[in-house]
Amino acid sequence: MPEQLFSYQQLFDFTESVFQKIGCSDEHAATAATSLLSADLRGIDSHGVARLSGYVRLWEVKRINARPEIKIIHETPSTAVVDGDSGLGLVIAPFAMQIAIEKARQVGTGWVSVQNSNHFGIAAHHAMMALEHDMIGIAMTNASPLVAPTFSIDKMLGTNPICMAAPAGNEPPFVADLATTTAANGKLEILQRKNILTPDGWVQDKDGNPSNDPHALKTGGALLPLGGDREHGSHKGYALGAMVDIFSALLSGANYAPWVPPFPAYVPMPAQQPGKGIGHFLGAMRVDAFRPADDFKKIWIIGYRDSGKQKLFPGKKKYWCPVILNGRMKQREW
Amino acid sequence: MPEQLFSYQQLFDFTESVFQKIGCSDEHAATAATSLLSADLRGIDSHGVARLSGYVRLWEVKRINARPEIKIIHETPSTAVVDGDSGLGLVIAPFAMQIAIEKARQVGTGWVSVQNSNHFGIAAHHAMMALEHDMIGIAMTNASPLVAPTFSIDKMLGTNPICMAAPAGNEPPFVADLATTTAANGKLEILQRKNILTPDGWVQDKDGNPSNDPHALKTGGALLPLGGDREHGSHKGYALGAMVDIFSALLSGANYAPWVPPFPAYVPMPAQQPGKGIGHFLGAMRVDAFRPADDFKKIWIIGYRDSGKQKLFPGKKKYWCPVILNGRMKQREW
Repeated sequence: MPEQLFSYQQLFDFTESVFQKIGCSDEHAATAATSLLSADLRGIDSHGVARLSGYVRLWEVKRINARPEIKIIHETPSTAVVDGDSGLGLVIAPFAMQIAIEKARQVGTGWVSVQNSNHFGIAAHHAMMALEHDMIGIAMTNASPLVAPTFSIDKMLGTNPICMAAPAGNEPPFVADLATTTAANGKLEILQRKNILTPDGWVQDKDGNPSNDPHALKTGGALLPLGGDREHGSHKGYALGAMVDIFSALLSGANYAPWVPPFPAYVPMPAQQPGKGIGHFLGAMRVDAFRPADDFKKIWIIGYRDSGKQKLFPGKKKYWCPVILNGRMKQREW
Repeated sequence: MPEQLFSYQQLFDFTESVFQKIGCSDEHAATAATSLLSADLRGIDSHGVARLSGYVRLWEVKRINARPEIKIIHETPSTAVVDGDSGLGLVIAPFAMQIAIEKARQVGTGWVSVQNSNHFGIAAHHAMMALEHDMIGIAMTNASPLVAPTFSIDKMLGTNPICMAAPAGNEPPFVADLATTTAANGKLEILQRKNILTPDGWVQDKDGNPSNDPHALKTGGALLPLGGDREHGSHKGYALGAMVDIFSALLSGANYAPWVPPFPAYVPMPAQQPGKGIGHFLGAMRVDAFRPADDFKKIWIIGYRDSGKQKLFPGKKKYWCPVILNGRMKQREW
C-alpha cells in the first residue's frame, strides 16, 4: 500500500465516525477519538489510530459496551470508585480523571480507582488533563498478562504503566509515561516486524532462560520487568507492576494479575475471573495544596554534561539528551 | 574485633541513650531509635544501627537540630507541608506520616510533603505505619546526588527510593521499598568491601562509560538509574527518580537534584542551595475509602512456576521465589 498522509482533522473525523457507527453517543465518540489520537500527536504510533480496529473487534465480540452507564459506586471527599459498565477505556478514564480533578479542587487531592473498563490508550493523555488546572496528574492501568515476575516462567502481570504529569509554566511540562517492563510491548513489536534480535533483558523463553528472540512471546516466553533479571533489579520492576495492579484493580474490584482481559479480540477471556473488566487508577493533586503554583513552576534549567553515549536505536530516529528543569525532565518521547 | 551479638532491647537502649545524649527529648529519642532499628529488624543492615554514628557526626557539624520545632506550614483537608526544622528525619517522617494517617481518616487519603529534614532511615518503616489502620502507606525521600541520568556524566539525582505498603490480612503485608537505581548504594558498598566487580548496569565511570568497578564513584563515576542504560530502560529509572524529587522537594520547598545535602558529615554542603534540607513525601490511603477492607485483604494465593534461575548473589544468603498474593508480592528483603 502506498504511503499516504492524513491531517489530524481527517483522522479525527474518521475515528469519531467509527465510534459513532458502533453506537457511541456523539459526546463519547468525540472523547474516544481525542483520547486515541493523543497517542499519534505525541508520537506513540503504536497506541493511536493504528489500534482503532482493535477496539472495533472488541465491540464486535461484545466485550465493549458502546452505550455504557459510567457511574461512581463509592466515594469519600478525596476518593471514588468508578464502574465503567464495560465501556471504552478511552471514555471512562477521562470521566474518572474529571472526578479526580474536581475532588482535588475541593480537598487538595483526588484519587479514583476504576473497575469494569477496557484499554484506555496512552496513560499520558489522562494524566495531562490535570496540567491546565495547575495540578499534578497521575494515571495507571493494569493490562493482560505478558510479563513474568522475577524467577517465574508464568506470565502474571501486564506491562502496567505509570504516568505522572506536572506543570512547568512556560517550559514543557514534566511527563513521564512508562511501562514497568524493560521494554513496552509496542517496542518489541517493532523488532518483530524487522526480525531484529532484542537486547538482553527484554524477554525470556518458555523455560525462563534469557532470550534475544523478538518472537519469544509466541512460543511461551514473556516480557521481563524493568531491570530484566535479578542482578539488574527486575524485582523492582516487578514490584512497581504489582503496585499498579493494587491501585488499579485491588482497590476497584477489577480483574488483576493473570485474569486481566486481553486486548486482541481473538484471544479467549481468562476463565474464572475474580473481578470486573480491567482496572485504572487516576489521581490529581493541586500544586497549591502544597505551595504556591508559581513557585513550583519557576524554572531553573540545569544542564548537565552529555556523555556522548547516545546511539541510534531500531525504529527511532533520534533522542534528546534530557535536561532537568527544576528537577523535571523535559517532555520527550523515548 | 570479635563478633558479638546484642539483643534488640540492648541495641534499642543504647541507640535511645545516644539520641538523648545529643539533646533529643525522651520522646524523640525513642521515636528515632525505633525508626533506625526497624532497618535491622527487617534485615537491611546497611540502614540500621550501623549508621548511628553518621547521625551523630551530622549533629556535631550542626547539620542536625536535636530540638526541632516540627510544624505544619500549609495544609488542606487532604494535604500538608511540614517544616522539619533541621531535625532528625527519623523523627520528622513518623510525625508527617501520622498527619497523613489522620487526614486519611477524615477525607479518605492524606499526603504530606516535608522540607528541612535529614535522612529518615528506611522508607518502609514510615509507610508500614499505615498498615494497622487498614490503610495503604507510601513513603519516598530524595537523597544526595549519586546517580547520573541516562546519557549524563554528572550526578544529578539521589537513589530516591519509593515504598508502598498494603495490608493483607493474615498474610504478610505487601511491602515494596526500592531505590530507583539498578542497585542501592548499600549493595554497592558490599561489593566494595569484598572487591568484587559489579554486574553490568550498576555504575559508570567519570566519562559515562559502562564500568564494573565497585569503586567507580570514588573517581568521578556514578550509580545508574534502574535499567542501567538506555537499551535496558534506564530512562524509566531516571524518570522514577525525578518523580520522587518532585513529590519530596518541589512540592515542599526542600533542596532537589544536585543540591540535596550529603549524609557523610565530612562531605561539604552544596553551594547556593535553592531549598531547605532534604525532602520526603508520605501518603496514607484508607482502603475502605475505595472498597471494604476485608474484600481487599482477602487472599488468593497464586503460585507460579519457578524457573529454577535463582542463584546466590554476593552478600546475600538466599532468596525466596516471590508469590503473588491477591496481586501482592510476599514481604521479602532482596
